[in-house]
Amino acid sequence: MYGEIITIGDELTSGRTLNLNGWYAAGRLTAAGLKVTRITSVGDNYPMVAEALERALENSRFIIVTGGLGSTQDDKTSEIVAKALNRPLSLDQKMFRLLEEYAKARGLTITSSLEKMAWMPNGSRLLSPEGRACGFCLVEKGVRLYFLPGVPEQMRYLMDKVVIPELLSFYDEIPVTRSRILKLYGLTEPHIAEMFRELEDRTGDVVLGFYPQFPEIHITLSLRGEDEATVSGELDRVEAEIRQVMGTYIFAQGNESMEEVMGRLLVDRKLTLSLAESCTGGLIGHRITNVSGSSEYFQGGIVCYSNRAKIQLLGVKEKTLEEHGAVSEATAREMALGIRDALGADLGLAVTGIAGPTGGTPQKPVGMVFIGLATGDKIFAKGYRFWGTREEVKQQSATMALDWVRRYVTNNPFLPGI
Amino acid sequence: MYGEIITIGDELTSGRTLNLNGWYAAGRLTAAGLKVTRITSVGDNYPMVAEALERALENSRFIIVTGGLGSTQDDKTSEIVAKALNRPLSLDQKMFRLLEEYAKARGLTITSSLEKMAWMPNGSRLLSPEGRACGFCLVEKGVRLYFLPGVPEQMRYLMDKVVIPELLSFYDEIPVTRSRILKLYGLTEPHIAEMFRELEDRTGDVVLGFYPQFPEIHITLSLRGEDEATVSGELDRVEAEIRQVMGTYIFAQGNESMEEVMGRLLVDRKLTLSLAESCTGGLIGHRITNVSGSSEYFQGGIVCYSNRAKIQLLGVKEKTLEEHGAVSEATAREMALGIRDALGADLGLAVTGIAGPTGGTPQKPVGMVFIGLATGDKIFAKGYRFWGTREEVKQQSATMALDWVRRYVTNNPFLPGI
Repeated sequence: MYGEIITIGDELTSGRTLNLNGWYAAGRLTAAGLKVTRITSVGDNYPMVAEALERALENSRFIIVTGGLGSTQDDKTSEIVAKALNRPLSLDQKMFRLLEEYAKARGLTITSSLEKMAWMPNGSRLLSPEGRACGFCLVEKGVRLYFLPGVPEQMRYLMDKVVIPELLSFYDEIPVTRSRILKLYGLTEPHIAEMFRELEDRTGDVVLGFYPQFPEIHITLSLRGEDEATVSGELDRVEAEIRQVMGTYIFAQGNESMEEVMGRLLVDRKLTLSLAESCTGGLIGHRITNVSGSSEYFQGGIVCYSNRAKIQLLGVKEKTLEEHGAVSEATAREMALGIRDALGADLGLAVTGIAGPTGGTPQKPVGMVFIGLATGDKIFAKGYRFWGTREEVKQQSATMALDWVRRYVTNNPFLPGI
Repeated sequence: MYGEIITIGDELTSGRTLNLNGWYAAGRLTAAGLKVTRITSVGDNYPMVAEALERALENSRFIIVTGGLGSTQDDKTSEIVAKALNRPLSLDQKMFRLLEEYAKARGLTITSSLEKMAWMPNGSRLLSPEGRACGFCLVEKGVRLYFLPGVPEQMRYLMDKVVIPELLSFYDEIPVTRSRILKLYGLTEPHIAEMFRELEDRTGDVVLGFYPQFPEIHITLSLRGEDEATVSGELDRVEAEIRQVMGTYIFAQGNESMEEVMGRLLVDRKLTLSLAESCTGGLIGHRITNVSGSSEYFQGGIVCYSNRAKIQLLGVKEKTLEEHGAVSEATAREMALGIRDALGADLGLAVTGIAGPTGGTPQKPVGMVFIGLATGDKIFAKGYRFWGTREEVKQQSATMALDWVRRYVTNNPFLPGI
């Protein structure tokens, strides 16, 4: 089942806006076993939109179009479609009533620009009759065309609630397609490529994909087949083979993030965590607290950018800073211990390093980062050398620190350092 | 000067990867005054890539193609181009030598998959003869085609260093196009739309664009003209008009972020900042420390997710927490004062609130956030009600807090709260 996506808007072709809608639609269609052959972005103008529609009509069974359905002057999709497909605009009574209600609720009178949204190409069907989002569907030469708004929330709502279920019901001859994601951290690409070769004759028809998502690497397993049970069973088998080879480098299956995995493990074990961040500047705390419910295990932390903060808030000894420097294993240990005790948490996690681009020395270059973890009875600390920009060094430090907690809690060794 | 962008890769049409390359190329071309009419994403397969190339050749003066130039089996762009344009592959000696050196430096022997990267369609010219990135250019029917790797760093390097300068030198009949960005925070879209109407007869030929970048709003001013001086002069005039109407809501011109603006202002005034974050969980510190050199003014902070952390590390009174709650104006004041004194900074900035989705009450709903700022002689505090997801509430709280510092330092009033 082949289809295309057309995203409309000058903000896309001028590079002002990232094409999140195209990405989202493609991902959801693929996950549903529908194949997207092309994503085309064009500006809000007749010839380009019309050409894209005509071309897509030749090759596709379905077409998803986003953008240009709003009330402003730039929003010309309905008009363009009317002309390109020779389906004059007519007033959709239902939509008009919805717009009247919308205006009334806000004490407004309905303007011509608002009314515009109720004019649709002949033969269109409103996608959300309850008025949650504008958007319509029409069938042309046997091809189903879905026109969705460019507002991401509305577009996503209609994709998930209307478009995907409809497409699946119309094309139920689709064989089952299933895919899953394994997330890895700590292996380099050449390493994984080598492991893939090792696995070659054990993966059957499962297609393996390989997607670096800095600093993680994601592996996808996909399989098409006749029925759900066979497909899932075979994916289970191959996943087990991969797990055997890649072991504890796999930190998640599916969409769970490192901070979610870590949080889940801490909740399971009823452990609390406190945090002392230097070079990451708050990033680790930010990531941890992106997880709803993190207050259950995360007690808080300290961002100790200055030596003064390290001494005063964490009790790092002046002598340690003088002898070993702020970026050192010794300081990481004292920071971890200091924050654990200051907040009475089960675990104290600390990071100190040089994010760059300035501040490096031959002995302590940019990217050198020490991680410390104080537990009930032991303090661990180790140094790493990361590469990249300031933001990349921060991200790697944060992921490594979170991975330390994951590995500690699951009794796995930390990744080797420098 | 019209051109197109073609991005190649199954990871794009399947929605696994965001099309960052298309976005980047479109943005850079537009900024250089070159118009992009279409961005097409297709998978790594002959018919789709060939069709995209043929279509683009009919309509464009230049074509940027990204992806499929690496050494893996998926990388088929050179092969496809060779076939589609009838330009058989031949071995580029220069590229082959570069690859040999690359392999030698790593103690590897050159493999056939590596060698593949040196085979290019007849008539191609290497874009980076010094070997910084693979990529080639060829001219077909008067159209310049640039083939760039999918690796973002390499692609961006070649776009900026080679492609844009070359295109500008070839097409120097381009009239001058200049655009600039003004970044706003604190105004709603309807507000700005109203202000735009007010400005209508004062903007001459300058085209105004309006781009929400949550939680900021960016306004673009663009103008084409015959010469640099006239175009810049007119943009200056219109920018001044806009500034008159939008005043202190404009926090930056160009690419500067809120945290960079704040940092620059603190450096100018030789002020230091400390931070107490509750609901933002470290996000503000993360954003501040994304700016290189932030250690000059940022002393550090505390992430006080628990009451215990607020009491122990910041000296917030238990009584205050009992009487007013952790999310209150009184607590925000004490947090700000506490962190200012703990670190001996000039300014203490504090945020406490309910990020959601859980934890809200009728009196203190999700999205209620208090900001506090302790200065040399005064403490300010105020509550805001933000809307959206957990991440959105965090982002708005962070931006508002940074804006407080900007407004305090420039003697402007804080934005009104609840």
